[in-house]
Amino acid sequence: MGGAATSRLVGMSARAKSSMADERSREDSPIRLRLDLAYDGTDFSGWAEQPGRRTVAGLVRSALEVLSRGPVRLVVAGRTDAGVHASGQVAHVDVARPDAVTVRSLNGLLPPDIRVRAVELASPGFDARFSALDRRYAYRVTDGIPDPLRRHDTVRWARPLDETAMQEAAAALRGLHDFGAFCRRRVGATTTRELQSLSWARDAQGVLTATVQADAFCHAMVRSLVGALLAVGDGRARPSWPASLLGATERCSHVTVAPAHGLTLVEVRYPAAPELAARAAGTRRRRG
Amino acid sequence: MGGAATSRLVGMSARAKSSMADERSREDSPIRLRLDLAYDGTDFSGWAEQPGRRTVAGLVRSALEVLSRGPVRLVVAGRTDAGVHASGQVAHVDVARPDAVTVRSLNGLLPPDIRVRAVELASPGFDARFSALDRRYAYRVTDGIPDPLRRHDTVRWARPLDETAMQEAAAALRGLHDFGAFCRRRVGATTTRELQSLSWARDAQGVLTATVQADAFCHAMVRSLVGALLAVGDGRARPSWPASLLGATERCSHVTVAPAHGLTLVEVRYPAAPELAARAAGTRRRRG
Repeated sequence: MGGAATSRLVGMSARAKSSMADERSREDSPIRLRLDLAYDGTDFSGWAEQPGRRTVAGLVRSALEVLSRGPVRLVVAGRTDAGVHASGQVAHVDVARPDAVTVRSLNGLLPPDIRVRAVELASPGFDARFSALDRRYAYRVTDGIPDPLRRHDTVRWARPLDETAMQEAAAALRGLHDFGAFCRRRVGATTTRELQSLSWARDAQGVLTATVQADAFCHAMVRSLVGALLAVGDGRARPSWPASLLGATERCSHVTVAPAHGLTLVEVRYPAAPELAARAAGTRRRRG
Repeated sequence: MGGAATSRLVGMSARAKSSMADERSREDSPIRLRLDLAYDGTDFSGWAEQPGRRTVAGLVRSALEVLSRGPVRLVVAGRTDAGVHASGQVAHVDVARPDAVTVRSLNGLLPPDIRVRAVELASPGFDARFSALDRRYAYRVTDGIPDPLRRHDTVRWARPLDETAMQEAAAALRGLHDFGAFCRRRVGATTTRELQSLSWARDAQGVLTATVQADAFCHAMVRSLVGALLAVGDGRARPSWPASLLGATERCSHVTVAPAHGLTLVEVRYPAAPELAARAAGTRRRRG
């Protein structure tokens, strides 16, 4: 076969041959794309693929494989749990046929509860997971009558919530800490994180929204932080309690994980292009 | 039976008899309640009851009948079509046992796509339909990538929408006009309405929202106005076209009815208590 292919080059100039070889090597070495995604997590068993389950990664990967005509590996910034939504999820994928992968072609193959918001060539060094500077989540909860149109992304809390107490407790959690009490631990992984933002705001409809931002989160950390703050809000715990758990190396059994459907991954931020590779290398080193 | 009841009053003072008679007459004459409601119209065949269909009125009436232990008649401010939502719907009902009808008891019997926001004793003269001063609707449409979490109340428009052209066309429709071209006509009913507001605003996510307010709307009027403005927005019609149809007494076949799921009834306003009865009488006279 190699001989047959070479024989077809007979009679071509050296320059043409070299250009064709370049092209073949470009076809062989895949191109990295950055995907910006939004999804309604209601009917998904989360981001990560699981055999026999409807997952976001499963559907997005299938659509990418149809378009790129071959197997692909999808890497995501925030692996959301079952029922968690995203408005600003980011992923990357390496594909052999990048021109076939567009917002329109992907959305044509995906169900309406997943939308691709943007597809672009990734800058050199870009890694959706390891290049990320930080992730921002929003958690919606109401102690009033829920808006039926927002019931899929707003938790109904049966007891009144004291937002002043919740704010006080939230402030004491911010900063660089070991959040082991709020994490489902993985062996060998650090649970030290920098919690950059954690605050509550009540809107005109009475819905309380927590904004939670950190360089990264360990498993179930956002919902555990929210769960602890809701215990403060409805009077089951004192405002000083959540911060008193900081530094514990074991998950605290009194911290309940707030319901998934109140949570949305809103934004993932990345450094400017020249710093993408260094950031990815640094993150890999720290997490290792 | 009357004789037996009377015989049980033997031996009571005249005053006691009279008080008991009052109580019986209070039980017999029902008390009017005002209900404030919100619903996700997705899975309903509209407000109005239809045999064998899942309707908002059907479920709310059934819940009221369970609580008040007898048949009731529900009167609504805005009879929304199939798929149309409400955040500020208002209804009234006359019940014999008003104490049993509460926000909590109703919501306990209703599915999560209907929520009762408030129940109160209606002021004298209050009629949810005829006392209303005006109704306000919102219509959501996007020419960008739709947010999956808002896909139930936001229409996706495949062509780009020119909001300046839509604003210009909307401005020319405001005021007191015969909206016959935009109505599904009912024999003998006027199609003259006062369109108090009709304007578009684009939010940070790129979603265009029309605010539409009038004293009242004839059937399919809001969605016909929006349909005509969307034809202007995507370049199929000139900004002067919708207003050129004003005064026509027949429905215009070129006006398309915009999809139901973009529409939400947001607010119904009423006059102060002393004017409720006069407003209801005046409305009945004008519509007759």
